[in-house]
Amino acid sequence: MVKYSFKDDYSEGCHPSILEKLLKTTYEQQDGYGDDKYSREAKKLIKEQINNQNADIHFVSGGTQANLLTISSALRSHESVISAKTGHIHTHEAGAIEATGHKINEVLSKDGKLRTEDIEAVLAEHNTVPHMVKPKMVYISDSTEVGTVYRKNELEELFDFCKARGMYLFLDGARLGSALCAENNDLILPDLPLLTDVFYIGGTKNGALLGEAIVINNNRLKTDFSFHMKQRGALLSKGRVLGVQFLELLKNDLFFDLAKHANSMAKRIVKVLRENGYAFLTDSTSNQIFPILPDRIINKLKSKYEFYIWEKIDKENSVIRIVTSWATKEEIVDEFISDIVGDS
Amino acid sequence: MVKYSFKDDYSEGCHPSILEKLLKTTYEQQDGYGDDKYSREAKKLIKEQINNQNADIHFVSGGTQANLLTISSALRSHESVISAKTGHIHTHEAGAIEATGHKINEVLSKDGKLRTEDIEAVLAEHNTVPHMVKPKMVYISDSTEVGTVYRKNELEELFDFCKARGMYLFLDGARLGSALCAENNDLILPDLPLLTDVFYIGGTKNGALLGEAIVINNNRLKTDFSFHMKQRGALLSKGRVLGVQFLELLKNDLFFDLAKHANSMAKRIVKVLRENGYAFLTDSTSNQIFPILPDRIINKLKSKYEFYIWEKIDKENSVIRIVTSWATKEEIVDEFISDIVGDS
Amino acid sequence: MVKYSFKDDYSEGCHPSILEKLLKTTYEQQDGYGDDKYSREAKKLIKEQINNQNADIHFVSGGTQANLLTISSALRSHESVISAKTGHIHTHEAGAIEATGHKINEVLSKDGKLRTEDIEAVLAEHNTVPHMVKPKMVYISDSTEVGTVYRKNELEELFDFCKARGMYLFLDGARLGSALCAENNDLILPDLPLLTDVFYIGGTKNGALLGEAIVINNNRLKTDFSFHMKQRGALLSKGRVLGVQFLELLKNDLFFDLAKHANSMAKRIVKVLRENGYAFLTDSTSNQIFPILPDRIINKLKSKYEFYIWEKIDKENSVIRIVTSWATKEEIVDEFISDIVGDS
Amino acid sequence: MVKYSFKDDYSEGCHPSILEKLLKTTYEQQDGYGDDKYSREAKKLIKEQINNQNADIHFVSGGTQANLLTISSALRSHESVISAKTGHIHTHEAGAIEATGHKINEVLSKDGKLRTEDIEAVLAEHNTVPHMVKPKMVYISDSTEVGTVYRKNELEELFDFCKARGMYLFLDGARLGSALCAENNDLILPDLPLLTDVFYIGGTKNGALLGEAIVINNNRLKTDFSFHMKQRGALLSKGRVLGVQFLELLKNDLFFDLAKHANSMAKRIVKVLRENGYAFLTDSTSNQIFPILPDRIINKLKSKYEFYIWEKIDKENSVIRIVTSWATKEEIVDEFISDIVGDS
Repeated sequence: MVKYSFKDDYSEGCHPSILEKLLKTTYEQQDGYGDDKYSREAKKLIKEQINNQNADIHFVSGGTQANLLTISSALRSHESVISAKTGHIHTHEAGAIEATGHKINEVLSKDGKLRTEDIEAVLAEHNTVPHMVKPKMVYISDSTEVGTVYRKNELEELFDFCKARGMYLFLDGARLGSALCAENNDLILPDLPLLTDVFYIGGTKNGALLGEAIVINNNRLKTDFSFHMKQRGALLSKGRVLGVQFLELLKNDLFFDLAKHANSMAKRIVKVLRENGYAFLTDSTSNQIFPILPDRIINKLKSKYEFYIWEKIDKENSVIRIVTSWATKEEIVDEFISDIVGDS
Repeated sequence: MVKYSFKDDYSEGCHPSILEKLLKTTYEQQDGYGDDKYSREAKKLIKEQINNQNADIHFVSGGTQANLLTISSALRSHESVISAKTGHIHTHEAGAIEATGHKINEVLSKDGKLRTEDIEAVLAEHNTVPHMVKPKMVYISDSTEVGTVYRKNELEELFDFCKARGMYLFLDGARLGSALCAENNDLILPDLPLLTDVFYIGGTKNGALLGEAIVINNNRLKTDFSFHMKQRGALLSKGRVLGVQFLELLKNDLFFDLAKHANSMAKRIVKVLRENGYAFLTDSTSNQIFPILPDRIINKLKSKYEFYIWEKIDKENSVIRIVTSWATKEEIVDEFISDIVGDS
Repeated sequence: MVKYSFKDDYSEGCHPSILEKLLKTTYEQQDGYGDDKYSREAKKLIKEQINNQNADIHFVSGGTQANLLTISSALRSHESVISAKTGHIHTHEAGAIEATGHKINEVLSKDGKLRTEDIEAVLAEHNTVPHMVKPKMVYISDSTEVGTVYRKNELEELFDFCKARGMYLFLDGARLGSALCAENNDLILPDLPLLTDVFYIGGTKNGALLGEAIVINNNRLKTDFSFHMKQRGALLSKGRVLGVQFLELLKNDLFFDLAKHANSMAKRIVKVLRENGYAFLTDSTSNQIFPILPDRIINKLKSKYEFYIWEKIDKENSVIRIVTSWATKEEIVDEFISDIVGDS
Repeated sequence: MVKYSFKDDYSEGCHPSILEKLLKTTYEQQDGYGDDKYSREAKKLIKEQINNQNADIHFVSGGTQANLLTISSALRSHESVISAKTGHIHTHEAGAIEATGHKINEVLSKDGKLRTEDIEAVLAEHNTVPHMVKPKMVYISDSTEVGTVYRKNELEELFDFCKARGMYLFLDGARLGSALCAENNDLILPDLPLLTDVFYIGGTKNGALLGEAIVINNNRLKTDFSFHMKQRGALLSKGRVLGVQFLELLKNDLFFDLAKHANSMAKRIVKVLRENGYAFLTDSTSNQIFPILPDRIINKLKSKYEFYIWEKIDKENSVIRIVTSWATKEEIVDEFISDIVGDS
């Protein structure tokens, strides 16, 4: 029996409309390296939807690439980037940032979010010029790696603080769709150019085959970015692959529809589990949730479903990570819930 | 009027069968990061076709990525790689190799190929230990950046020399399909594991949407390669995108059929132009050809076709680069020929 | 009035015998880059004193250089180094290790020392191959950055653990002289080749003008080390500068005599302060001590002495760092003590 | 018998006055990391002698360090540096520049000097944005690695060209003393801040124990330079070592006196050899000369002297490199000349 996977949001391929469009246009000749018609149109569309005609948009194939490119092209070698301990760049990118020569300053954060006092503390610690690195960028993820989302005022505070201290704010949006569709979210796309120096819109984890759209708002970070893309192996010859995807995702709100579906599947699980007395590691409102379950139940679930065991809580309970996607099936979610609740 | 492009072999999308397969399987759940069923099957198929069960196969999205990964994971920081001046890594990758910390030792070569005496000369020059880098890898391309291909005995000599001198031989196969289908080629896929330490099979320039299959033959280069893929942003979450493509390309010789088509289109142009007295910069037998034409004709061609002007030869003549692809249309090739020859 | 400095152990120049020897031999012609007679003799002497004829010895000008060279020449780019949070490489080298492409895995440690359970925990955390770095080296300092020293059994446990787990153990000996002369030390020079893969003997902080002697015990770390020295700008043309220093320091136990003096000056302060009821941040037995003093006294001391305020303890007390050196004057130490105790 | 060495200009120690001063002041307490009184005074003196109060001065221990620091702190990773093939950074620094992530664009030059047309040609070649690196800095040496020196108008042309093209001009002055004292030189120290963005004054090869004084004239290159010094292991704890040296060398023209001596020793050889019909590889007027001699004579010389054989000219003649220094003995020069001429 094949198990149903709640391991991640990239177990399925992509929304069929993307492949249909790629198929329909496959014999068209287009310029390479992102100068194709579809990439140009997708960039135009993004500028409209974020309400910033001055943004520079670049499409790359994945999150690690987006992160290493953005950080390494922005910083000089003595400048560092501040990240939560749970931040993707700090733990799950095999040292990608350090391989480009930059230190990551770690901040402990229970909910995966950074606050101005965290950054202030790092800056205060780095007071021995020139013996220590110079923290110059703040890296945050929305939604975070533990499922939480930023409120508009939180982002405003962070951005104001960064500006006051001469730092860049970089928002990793690998799961931005899910964040913007979360029930407690009050951010909209047009807020992001006003509240970050650079961010990206994640396609891979929200229904694309591959692709992230990097949006550079700060002029200082725009210069020669495409050289860095080429240098890091991130400039696809057939840029249309990425252009077509973002065009399809964004033109009729498909991007948001897919994110809403993923969120609603997660929310359904959260609701019933809470009603049945289960606690969660974090207050996630996105498509990654972290229920705390008896090991006995977890073991039973493992025979039918795939998911990660996040950490042990005590002798008899553990946290698991459940990730829903744009393609998660409602009926299996219900079955999954009943496999837990029916067994409590 | 839209011009027809002979600029490169990645102006079209990909062979439709690839997209059809991706579409058909899009709702299937598959493991990420290359552990999906399609990647596993594609790797199995490649091992059979190259006749080497011990090879390690890794799929990445493009040539620059394949090059920087292979070189940086193989070398220590004081070790360098020898390349022809025309080598892709030396001139057209925005310093990708140097950005990973390695020097490229340049060799002048009229036909884009390296010979043992070229490498010998570099080694002889690097005699001041430890003041100079230590050349440790030889990088060649087949077909080369100027359209030529390696003969089996040439590759044997290079490989024997490299082994005798403790060096790695790395073959960039971004256009390997075209090389193996060239009329004067006498290499077959099973030769490559025996005559290189590592090589790759290029998909992007031969009918794939994106993708290169790196084949590591030397055990010393296998260790922890996937860490480097992750670190350089080359490990796609949805590895199936690459697996499906190589499976489709390789399962019924589609890969070779596409390469043959591209070559035959180029050959047709070469034949008629030679018959009409035109010379070429190199003796290309692959899908990249470099005819020398009067500027008067070039200017006329430019109104209907896109292509690169490679270099001026004299006051009245220049070399242009014409690239045919898996999807180049026969009737347009004929029209292109007639636009030159009819006008001579 | 010029204040007396307890800020560090490099405020004075160097032991006069070194300069006298350099002066006496200055017109001699010697080979460059460490092949001079003095460097050769110094290396011979070190091999005798550490009782390891197979060691490779290299002289470099400072600690950051020794650290970045040793780590970057030993590791591949996906491999990381584990360090205490207080480790010099982690906080006080401006990102030197990361600039060579390597991540540092941080361990919290109250006394600046690492234990096997710390390393075990880092390894356990790094279980998601190939998404996380691969910890491959353990970096420790003896004496540590907070003045503590390793016991022989502690080093044995660490080294055995590293060997069992395929890791390298690297001991930063910038203050090794002070460590080996500490009252609770039970290590001797000949222990170090048996209990580390690589370590260095610090000259700069123990009476030399500049210079650290890197001792490589593990054969795997020896290959081509000098290329890396040249590449990182660490290969002095006039290697004699370093050779003469280590020869002078080591030939008649001057190295240990200087360290003992520094330690005894620190111990004198510790003793009286403890007798007078003062506590210390750490149980330092080396030449760096961290007394906790009332801010009122600290403020008074600041008018006569230079030292670092390490951290606030509470509203009325802070920790200061006092460093004694090979040249610290006894009478000023007594005056310093009396300025504290007389005022309590 | 010990042979007399003409291999290089760093075979002797340093001018005794430096060591005497270091000895005299060795027990003084001074601030570390270049904030000592001697470094401050030396910087003040240099600013006066170059007639530029706005320059930033930094002392480092050697030429490779000065080069890698200056280049890596100035360039972003996609920016490259243009150098003559003979340039020290390109051939004799074990890949130091590439190890910091930057490509070197090679220019062939018979006399070791760069001209605007050389740079123009490199820029013209680099026309495929963003596929090629972006040449951003020009690296020259004065005197060059083959003994020639720049005329003021040559430097003016280069600098004007660089400014017009948005590039930095960096002058490696490892042998600047010899260059400025060459008979055909018309540059003076105050010219250099006006005609370069950054340069350095070499101590190591002109009578110092170790040390180069980097002079940054362009404000854009000044920011945070000391962080990079620390990060690359170039910030000596006992900065006084470097400060004292430059103070001694520069305060009474000792620096120029030493360079003049070295040059005059070389000139004496050149004069007599030319009179006796010998040719030279280059028109060197500095302390490195490249006479072409019969192999028969070279073999005889080898029994009494040390020097490098540069290259074979034909079956019977070779070029050798003879380097004179601040300490080269007049009587041995005469003996050397007579060993050649007497034997012709």
